Amino acid sequence: MKNTLYFKLKNKKVQEEVFEAIVKEQESVGYYALPEQDISPIVEFAQTIPDEITQIAVIGIGGSSLGAKAIYEFIKPTRPLKRELHFFESTDPININNLLSKLDFKKTHFLIISKSGTTVETFSIYKYIYSINQNTKAYTFITDPGSPLEKYANSLQSTILHLPNNVGGRFSVLATVGLIPLALASIDIQALLDGALTLKKSFFEAGYIKDTLLKKAVYYARHHEKYHINCIFAYSETLKYFCEWYVQLWGESLGKRQRHSAFNVGQTPIGLIGPKDQHSFLQLIMEGSRDKSVTFIKIENFKDDIVIPDISLKHLEPLDILNNLPFSQLINMQCDSVLEALMEEDIPLDTISIEEVNEKNIGALMYYYELLTSLVGELIDVNTYNQPGVEAGKLILKQKLEKR
Amino acid sequence: MKNTLYFKLKNKKVQEEVFEAIVKEQESVGYYALPEQDISPIVEFAQTIPDEITQIAVIGIGGSSLGAKAIYEFIKPTRPLKRELHFFESTDPININNLLSKLDFKKTHFLIISKSGTTVETFSIYKYIYSINQNTKAYTFITDPGSPLEKYANSLQSTILHLPNNVGGRFSVLATVGLIPLALASIDIQALLDGALTLKKSFFEAGYIKDTLLKKAVYYARHHEKYHINCIFAYSETLKYFCEWYVQLWGESLGKRQRHSAFNVGQTPIGLIGPKDQHSFLQLIMEGSRDKSVTFIKIENFKDDIVIPDISLKHLEPLDILNNLPFSQLINMQCDSVLEALMEEDIPLDTISIEEVNEKNIGALMYYYELLTSLVGELIDVNTYNQPGVEAGKLILKQKLEKR
Repeated sequence: MKNTLYFKLKNKKVQEEVFEAIVKEQESVGYYALPEQDISPIVEFAQTIPDEITQIAVIGIGGSSLGAKAIYEFIKPTRPLKRELHFFESTDPININNLLSKLDFKKTHFLIISKSGTTVETFSIYKYIYSINQNTKAYTFITDPGSPLEKYANSLQSTILHLPNNVGGRFSVLATVGLIPLALASIDIQALLDGALTLKKSFFEAGYIKDTLLKKAVYYARHHEKYHINCIFAYSETLKYFCEWYVQLWGESLGKRQRHSAFNVGQTPIGLIGPKDQHSFLQLIMEGSRDKSVTFIKIENFKDDIVIPDISLKHLEPLDILNNLPFSQLINMQCDSVLEALMEEDIPLDTISIEEVNEKNIGALMYYYELLTSLVGELIDVNTYNQPGVEAGKLILKQKLEKR
Repeated sequence: MKNTLYFKLKNKKVQEEVFEAIVKEQESVGYYALPEQDISPIVEFAQTIPDEITQIAVIGIGGSSLGAKAIYEFIKPTRPLKRELHFFESTDPININNLLSKLDFKKTHFLIISKSGTTVETFSIYKYIYSINQNTKAYTFITDPGSPLEKYANSLQSTILHLPNNVGGRFSVLATVGLIPLALASIDIQALLDGALTLKKSFFEAGYIKDTLLKKAVYYARHHEKYHINCIFAYSETLKYFCEWYVQLWGESLGKRQRHSAFNVGQTPIGLIGPKDQHSFLQLIMEGSRDKSVTFIKIENFKDDIVIPDISLKHLEPLDILNNLPFSQLINMQCDSVLEALMEEDIPLDTISIEEVNEKNIGALMYYYELLTSLVGELIDVNTYNQPGVEAGKLILKQKLEKR
């Protein structure tokens, strides 16, 4: 992974200060240590699921699904996987019916994932599915130790897996929450962690990413009032769900009241996919308000690359300039062209270049974004790891449910 | 469709002025007239495609795919359709391979959609597919009259369908571009137009939506510097691709330099799906910077509704408040709860309520958003219908292609 910044920043002192703060934060925030974890309990659990099980239904929402989905959808188009993953993330009855119609219950194992063990969406869906399929062996539960869900799962004698301490939902992709479904699908979870570890070492042990990440974070924080929309422009369809994961990570971590003021701050995340969104969102970046920073993500080598054939179409001869061009080169030339066009404008830009679509690289990319989020959160003085703003709606819902 | 605004606005004069401007704009902008079109040429074309064809591959990008995709993905989960639609929208080779692996060429008809007839993505993909399948009867072309693509298609003796005059790509969902693939999939395109016509009449003939739309547009325009992010929070998974369509419509229409100033203006569109994004983006709306307006979209009645069963789970008894609740009620209670929580904050809110998932309602909803876009564009003094900002990148790409 390479990261090139196209903006300058001098303030070295702030960079050193935030680095020290993050070094210290490792004591209390759990996600930092995930790349070094021992995955053998996860591998052992995965081996208990028989080969006849070919479908995994993940019943979880937000941090309990977005990370696994991002990695699954990144890898899936590039090679056949052992099992399909299906994500139940909505209380929309059309969606539930639709997902259920794709499952063969005899071949399906259900993962019920809820940190608190009381998530309304997850339990509405679970109750519905459990009323159809009471085979308790078909369910595995992932939750915090001591949660009501753990007690319930114990009463069923079902398998329970725990979340590690102090790992928040949106930082849990490299914990059991993400690794269990991915391992069952035959994603190489050790490679995911190896990728994250490489990135981690490069940051904490003064490798090349340390300087880049610190500069980027300080720049974003210093200019967060002007450039308060942060866009990822990823040139590969495989990164579509990575973008959704990033939106949660960024928006929910950084959008809140400052710890030491009454100000509401935050950066709005936007996930874009190129070249498609050149035909949708680019006009707004190029000529709309100057409130956006943009990070381009490119994949250098695409597996099973294909080439635009050497065909000349009558009356369309000007398009012959495309002939004999591999699609991988075209998509990256499209990315470079948009980047160069934006360089003429007053827009902070950077590029992240990934060698190819594999576990190691997505592990590194996700850890990179987790670190960046932690750094910016520290610098704009918010508590990166809570989400107090979502409680009000939950309380109102509870009152409505009790009143009916 | 009902639309309720939770903000107030008095300025009647501006509302009357912009209404007059839009009435006049109908003379030069083509999309306004689409609801009244005669669909018989489209129906006749659809009848020429034999029943053995069960897959339609749409090769188009941006305005040439987003509208049809939005409607197809809205209706598809609710009933079996005659044909599958597959959208080729990317030059990502992984994506192209993946889509092609799903097609049986003997059962596939290809629609090549390009207004200008020179879209790089569309022709790269077309050339690749044509090199595999040279059966010219398998292709139909949709383009502007006189385009190079029309001449090429004539040389193949293939069917050509035209876009109507003065209809821009992102306003073309109710023209051939959208209606042809949808008709082939057995979507009721007359009902789509009927829905749009009802909305149109309600606006232009002083029905109830006139006042609401004008108020909303004037409010957005007057406060576009403060509330410069416009969120749709749609409580149904079926509206996911509608949100993508809206992002293009809103962002590309409104993000640009003012006609009579050097200012860059624009509103940034965000499409959210509830309840999923309560666990992702809501925190940022609730506690982040006060720069967002939010429109909630609800579906009143879900077909094939299902009910949360009357099961009490040991240790999870507090969740019994969910028992016997239809999912359709739960999802709408979730929407109402978030709406009520946001009402306590300084955030402009409104709700759009749709009776059920059908063609008439999505036709009306899309026409509503087209009108709103036109109104806001007029009020913030931009040319709603062009996209000059995307040209720079295209030129650089052309130079790169010629140089290699």
